[in-house]
Amino acid sequence: MAKQYELIHPKTHLRVLSQYEIQQLKDVSSGAHELLRRCSFAVLSAGSLEDDYTRLEESYKNFNITVEQEERGIVLQLSGAPSGAFVDDEIIRGVREQLFSVLRDILYAEENILKAHRFDLDKSEDITNAVFHILRNANLLQPDVEPKLVVCWGGHSIPPNEYQYTKEVGYELGLRGLDIGTGCGPGAMKGPMKGATIGHAKQHIRNGRYIGITEPGIIAAESPNPIVNELVILPDIEKRLEAFVRMAHGIIIFPGGPGTAEEILYILGVLSHPANKDIPFPLIITGPEETRAYLEDINRFIGDTLGKEAQARYELVINDPVTVARKMKAGMEAVRQYRRDNNDAYFFNWTLKIDHDFQVPFEPTHANMKTLRLTHDAPFHELAADLRRAFSGIVAGNVKADGVKLVRKHGPYEIHGDADILDGMDRLLRAMVDHGRMKISGKYDPCYRIVKS
Amino acid sequence: MAKQYELIHPKTHLRVLSQYEIQQLKDVSSGAHELLRRCSFAVLSAGSLEDDYTRLEESYKNFNITVEQEERGIVLQLSGAPSGAFVDDEIIRGVREQLFSVLRDILYAEENILKAHRFDLDKSEDITNAVFHILRNANLLQPDVEPKLVVCWGGHSIPPNEYQYTKEVGYELGLRGLDIGTGCGPGAMKGPMKGATIGHAKQHIRNGRYIGITEPGIIAAESPNPIVNELVILPDIEKRLEAFVRMAHGIIIFPGGPGTAEEILYILGVLSHPANKDIPFPLIITGPEETRAYLEDINRFIGDTLGKEAQARYELVINDPVTVARKMKAGMEAVRQYRRDNNDAYFFNWTLKIDHDFQVPFEPTHANMKTLRLTHDAPFHELAADLRRAFSGIVAGNVKADGVKLVRKHGPYEIHGDADILDGMDRLLRAMVDHGRMKISGKYDPCYRIVKS
Amino acid sequence: MAKQYELIHPKTHLRVLSQYEIQQLKDVSSGAHELLRRCSFAVLSAGSLEDDYTRLEESYKNFNITVEQEERGIVLQLSGAPSGAFVDDEIIRGVREQLFSVLRDILYAEENILKAHRFDLDKSEDITNAVFHILRNANLLQPDVEPKLVVCWGGHSIPPNEYQYTKEVGYELGLRGLDIGTGCGPGAMKGPMKGATIGHAKQHIRNGRYIGITEPGIIAAESPNPIVNELVILPDIEKRLEAFVRMAHGIIIFPGGPGTAEEILYILGVLSHPANKDIPFPLIITGPEETRAYLEDINRFIGDTLGKEAQARYELVINDPVTVARKMKAGMEAVRQYRRDNNDAYFFNWTLKIDHDFQVPFEPTHANMKTLRLTHDAPFHELAADLRRAFSGIVAGNVKADGVKLVRKHGPYEIHGDADILDGMDRLLRAMVDHGRMKISGKYDPCYRIVKS
Amino acid sequence: MAKQYELIHPKTHLRVLSQYEIQQLKDVSSGAHELLRRCSFAVLSAGSLEDDYTRLEESYKNFNITVEQEERGIVLQLSGAPSGAFVDDEIIRGVREQLFSVLRDILYAEENILKAHRFDLDKSEDITNAVFHILRNANLLQPDVEPKLVVCWGGHSIPPNEYQYTKEVGYELGLRGLDIGTGCGPGAMKGPMKGATIGHAKQHIRNGRYIGITEPGIIAAESPNPIVNELVILPDIEKRLEAFVRMAHGIIIFPGGPGTAEEILYILGVLSHPANKDIPFPLIITGPEETRAYLEDINRFIGDTLGKEAQARYELVINDPVTVARKMKAGMEAVRQYRRDNNDAYFFNWTLKIDHDFQVPFEPTHANMKTLRLTHDAPFHELAADLRRAFSGIVAGNVKADGVKLVRKHGPYEIHGDADILDGMDRLLRAMVDHGRMKISGKYDPCYRIVKS
Repeated sequence: MAKQYELIHPKTHLRVLSQYEIQQLKDVSSGAHELLRRCSFAVLSAGSLEDDYTRLEESYKNFNITVEQEERGIVLQLSGAPSGAFVDDEIIRGVREQLFSVLRDILYAEENILKAHRFDLDKSEDITNAVFHILRNANLLQPDVEPKLVVCWGGHSIPPNEYQYTKEVGYELGLRGLDIGTGCGPGAMKGPMKGATIGHAKQHIRNGRYIGITEPGIIAAESPNPIVNELVILPDIEKRLEAFVRMAHGIIIFPGGPGTAEEILYILGVLSHPANKDIPFPLIITGPEETRAYLEDINRFIGDTLGKEAQARYELVINDPVTVARKMKAGMEAVRQYRRDNNDAYFFNWTLKIDHDFQVPFEPTHANMKTLRLTHDAPFHELAADLRRAFSGIVAGNVKADGVKLVRKHGPYEIHGDADILDGMDRLLRAMVDHGRMKISGKYDPCYRIVKS
Repeated sequence: MAKQYELIHPKTHLRVLSQYEIQQLKDVSSGAHELLRRCSFAVLSAGSLEDDYTRLEESYKNFNITVEQEERGIVLQLSGAPSGAFVDDEIIRGVREQLFSVLRDILYAEENILKAHRFDLDKSEDITNAVFHILRNANLLQPDVEPKLVVCWGGHSIPPNEYQYTKEVGYELGLRGLDIGTGCGPGAMKGPMKGATIGHAKQHIRNGRYIGITEPGIIAAESPNPIVNELVILPDIEKRLEAFVRMAHGIIIFPGGPGTAEEILYILGVLSHPANKDIPFPLIITGPEETRAYLEDINRFIGDTLGKEAQARYELVINDPVTVARKMKAGMEAVRQYRRDNNDAYFFNWTLKIDHDFQVPFEPTHANMKTLRLTHDAPFHELAADLRRAFSGIVAGNVKADGVKLVRKHGPYEIHGDADILDGMDRLLRAMVDHGRMKISGKYDPCYRIVKS
Repeated sequence: MAKQYELIHPKTHLRVLSQYEIQQLKDVSSGAHELLRRCSFAVLSAGSLEDDYTRLEESYKNFNITVEQEERGIVLQLSGAPSGAFVDDEIIRGVREQLFSVLRDILYAEENILKAHRFDLDKSEDITNAVFHILRNANLLQPDVEPKLVVCWGGHSIPPNEYQYTKEVGYELGLRGLDIGTGCGPGAMKGPMKGATIGHAKQHIRNGRYIGITEPGIIAAESPNPIVNELVILPDIEKRLEAFVRMAHGIIIFPGGPGTAEEILYILGVLSHPANKDIPFPLIITGPEETRAYLEDINRFIGDTLGKEAQARYELVINDPVTVARKMKAGMEAVRQYRRDNNDAYFFNWTLKIDHDFQVPFEPTHANMKTLRLTHDAPFHELAADLRRAFSGIVAGNVKADGVKLVRKHGPYEIHGDADILDGMDRLLRAMVDHGRMKISGKYDPCYRIVKS
Repeated sequence: MAKQYELIHPKTHLRVLSQYEIQQLKDVSSGAHELLRRCSFAVLSAGSLEDDYTRLEESYKNFNITVEQEERGIVLQLSGAPSGAFVDDEIIRGVREQLFSVLRDILYAEENILKAHRFDLDKSEDITNAVFHILRNANLLQPDVEPKLVVCWGGHSIPPNEYQYTKEVGYELGLRGLDIGTGCGPGAMKGPMKGATIGHAKQHIRNGRYIGITEPGIIAAESPNPIVNELVILPDIEKRLEAFVRMAHGIIIFPGGPGTAEEILYILGVLSHPANKDIPFPLIITGPEETRAYLEDINRFIGDTLGKEAQARYELVINDPVTVARKMKAGMEAVRQYRRDNNDAYFFNWTLKIDHDFQVPFEPTHANMKTLRLTHDAPFHELAADLRRAFSGIVAGNVKADGVKLVRKHGPYEIHGDADILDGMDRLLRAMVDHGRMKISGKYDPCYRIVKS
């Protein structure tokens, strides 16, 4: 079922616009029309319980969105919108807000970041400032708020027992007054928010924050769940990751697939940077009892590659939501104390050093993969960066259309490095396949060839 | 696990007290100590997931609560409180509020209603005023709020599919901006609130009301679920029922046992009163597909006893949460229009005539049961009143300690009436037993003897 | 100009009423009709700039107010209301609120205090509790508010320079975030509020409190000025004085006539009580340069009669609003510290001992005047009480209708006491006459005869 | 008295800044340092009651302000700040907010308007958009607010009776719930705000708006009075005038000097444009009885030059604050209706056509003055524009340093036009001199020579 024709007016964002901006919005909606259409459809579909991807695709074909001028403001004109976004012909308020968040962020990124002369996006510092401006424009940076934002990462496609566990952790976090940020979408991104909602309700907290941080390439697959009450769309994966770690006062990582492994390597790579060694950053890897073996595999891999120092930056907590929440709560206090002592803002972690390596995309060509240096000679944070790239490339070679095509054409990637590191990586990837965390059709046939130094 | 010793300070209610009132509270806490202890324990246990009644009883034995004076105010001193009410040694805010709601209502009922000279509780009008005063003292009567309170009745012990259905109905109500009132407790009292919470969240409604209306005899078995953010304790069952129907702008009845049947007969008895025939009062009986036969049994029984006119006061909707919510929403508008036209308040249905019969308790002695007149000669609302009493007595004779004892001693109750009415009642009771909605140990052996006129 | 007929609906108070209370209100409005009429007229006249008392009287004759039932609530029906209370036929919001404050307090005093069995108004403790209940019912007792209420006393009929000075003091208080309480009316009661309004505005304080505390015998002459945003009417002078000192966190006394002298003796009498000697209570007597002589007269009189200890309870500050405000601000901190240390509430000074002598009215008959003991033998607080009575009687004998009649009939009052005390009192009274602070028609002929012991 | 050294932190504006912006602010504070210093000093002096201009100048010499980075934010460092801006060593909240408003607006104008590539400030449309962006950045454009902003113009140096009259008008406006906007400064800019404050207080309106709209050349002479709770600084006189008329829902003009005459000609010029003839725009010229002759002079001059049509755009109300307020209130309703019917925003009058002539500065050189065409041949709005320029030039030639110098050097300006128009202008200027509304030292010797066509 789809709505033939709907006009949606803004209620919160984008209500006071100049004619100049209205024109910009109309331009964006034509210039970046496919981007706007894809993100808007994701938001509108989230309410639906449609699981059948084919039907979603069919439905998407018939969907359109345009920005029209009306009453000295704008109005969104939808056709073929998924009916699940409406109640008795009226759009759900949360969906409406998210639609205008999409428009706001696409406009802002296009006009004030990408086209603007003020940011040189090749420079590390400017990237950080750009991320800050996007977040502030989305009204996410609040002064006067104590550190309490816990970012949760993990798989979006997880079994029921793991989903239940993420809910329980979220519930215990909510009971302790902590807010949740995730990457939108289902699974480990939705569970903590649902749990926290109940926790907040019991504590009569009415202004709980459920922050969704996403980007255009992901939003379609991981559409914002309806609980998200603050949504921001960053222009790409790396800026999204930077937004996560600069806003988070702590991070919890639930079991997931190679994407989650990339995220672990990202945060450990950042935290391993010598400049960051004194910055408190509560980081917990956790899962239910059934995931013990898998989590221990990851833990071992980190120890083998990045060493004990990297392991010291996180805690491994198995099957104990209360302990996770207590440790996170205690960590918040350490963060607060540190920021206060160092005159750092609570709402944005300026002090954290993020290497340029972690701020720019990695394109997994055969040439690029060959240049990776997975050796113990490299400083930990550089090794972490290269490991992350290796994972990224392997995932692409296994499952992403472009990557698979490249591997078919040129044969497996050649990856150079120390034997133990490469073996560890290989073991972890096989473990993911064994645990069903990497979707492989047919027999697993590695897309890489290890060249031990 | 139980907390050895806790001091709980008020945060919302009972913060500005005179020394006179502090003394009253200390007196009440000793005079009505058992009442306070029982209700408080119910509130404190709600957070716990303890299902084992024996353990609860054991735990209750060791629990105590006293009201102490401190800092020119009061403080509750707990010992042996269930640990589930606490997070990291701090009491959950919702539980704290409910504890002081209990204290507030017990004090108010004792001092301002039961002992007060201003109410003659034998008079219908004074009972209504007393109910009003208790509700207002609990801050439940809000001017400037449009009609949107839906009261949900139904069984507290229901199978998962029925519970799921109540959640779905609640979700659809919440999506339409409606608030929920129930009798606290699990099952059909909890499901609609949970569902509405999600519906409200999607609509960014942050001030959704989840009103729990209970009384001392019930609260122990049906402790307020944690979502309840407004709790009131009426002094007895009849005042609680009156509070329900005078605050409700509409009522939904889910499948339940004989208690629910009593509630149906109560509301239909009230609505059948000639004085109420023009008052709009949205009333829906609903359940999932699996309960179709049972709901039709009830519908038929009402038709057979109270007639088509009574049936016209409600709608039977099977397995369709969206339709239930839409009809309820439309009904709200009719209520609003009527109250406006008749200068009736939105927050209290003064106009509704509730016969004195429905305001006073019925004691199911053999003598009283014998005087019931279940005949077609009686006006519908009187027949409804007597049918309700008959059900009440039979339930007592079947399962309540006092009733069972009476029946053992004097033999089955003698119930007089028209053959078809008595047969209908008998059939419905057997249907309840068959559907497992009346808990009978061993073979069902009716505690009554039908004397057809 | 007067309005022929107006219906006024409640917007804040008295919106959720039971039928029982509506009936009470209708009864009160007939039973205590003259009281209601007088107070309401005072409120309605405050907006007017009419100074001609005769015209006011004329206008009053044609004024009437009744309480009517409508829309399940009440409505006030006015006829002949002063047109200054209306803007374009709509009643001024502040006046509307004050009207319903009047009704609320008269009803509450009648029903819940005077007629209630729970207060034995002959007992000191019960009087204090009654004052508390009236203030709380008027919503004046706010938890979570730091000590910052400064009560200002002084003449209502003062020359422009003194009025200007009270404004300047109020301005400096407002700049320092302090709130103002006065007895309503013009002069030293209005100036501090006007000044504080500007001070608050500069500090962007939008919730400044301007509390008016009055009683039925005074309200007609000193109608609440329009800035008063919280109004309460106590049943009599003594309860009003108790309300002042239990709510105040500090008191400032501006020059005034014998009424102000009575107030000084009241507060010094209270503070001189041995039980109160450790309680911090910022008290400042202040006025502009021109009042130096007069203030020094008062200061000397206090020293001569109540001694240095009494003088130590206040500070005399001449012509220095900034110093007054700074000292008051510093005093607030001492009050806060003391209340915190002693677990006393911030919103009501329970700890302060007020002797029964100060809680009951004094009737200035010749017999009563003769029993006063103005000697150094008496404890200071008793001497203060008797001095206050002596002043009260003398003022009555000089200017109040009943008193003047008594003196004409029985000759001057006979006052017994120590020579120096009586002389001091005599000097002070003559100073008041000289400074034009006691309105005497013709030559001043004392209404008392001093009998030195 | 001046403060040696103070650090002022932001509390409302400029609290969430990127490092990029902090750098910008530091740059602006050095690049546009004199501008920042002058505006800041004006704000800081407003609290002072210092009238002696020489002393102010002296004080200004010793004043400095710099923007420093601290705690990942900014802090203003003041030295030699006027002590009147502080209370007990703490800066007055209103002054603090205004200081950061100054900084905010200077930064925004420099970075986002003047330097930005997006606005071509030679184009009419872009100027309007720029004004809009500055106002929105200052948070002045509020959706969801009904039309109720009354802009008041008039002299800043007026006699007490006229000042009193502006207060009375403001009071009546405030009583009717209307907000006030002025150009900051004393006289007719302060009176209406003071009056409205009392009117709002009586109506319990706590969110009354007192908007100050100024520009760098004026702020020093007309520093924002302390009641202003929203302050914006436009880059120049013409943008300030455009901000006034696009935000205003109505305008009241009190008597003033040639500056006020310019404002009258500006608004009448705008309203006379054929494109604006159907747009409702309540405009009232008013003053106390004593100003009758002067107001009638102005009225006659308008009739003689711009004709009856221009006169029809305003109402002349003499000595009647209630009528002024009632007409303004009624006008608001017409504005609301029109904007609603035409889908125009309430917060910005996009529809109003403002000719490019009115958007750009006029430099009163002899050559420019000679080109003015003050003839009946010109369309009214062009004649109004040229008349405004003529006044502007004459004022400069009379009293402004540069103008006086030019006239001394080149002799009187030559002004061409129709005899009656030129005579009318001449008469009006002489009337201003006679009424003391144009400050001339010595005998009035016109700086212009009329050349009648």
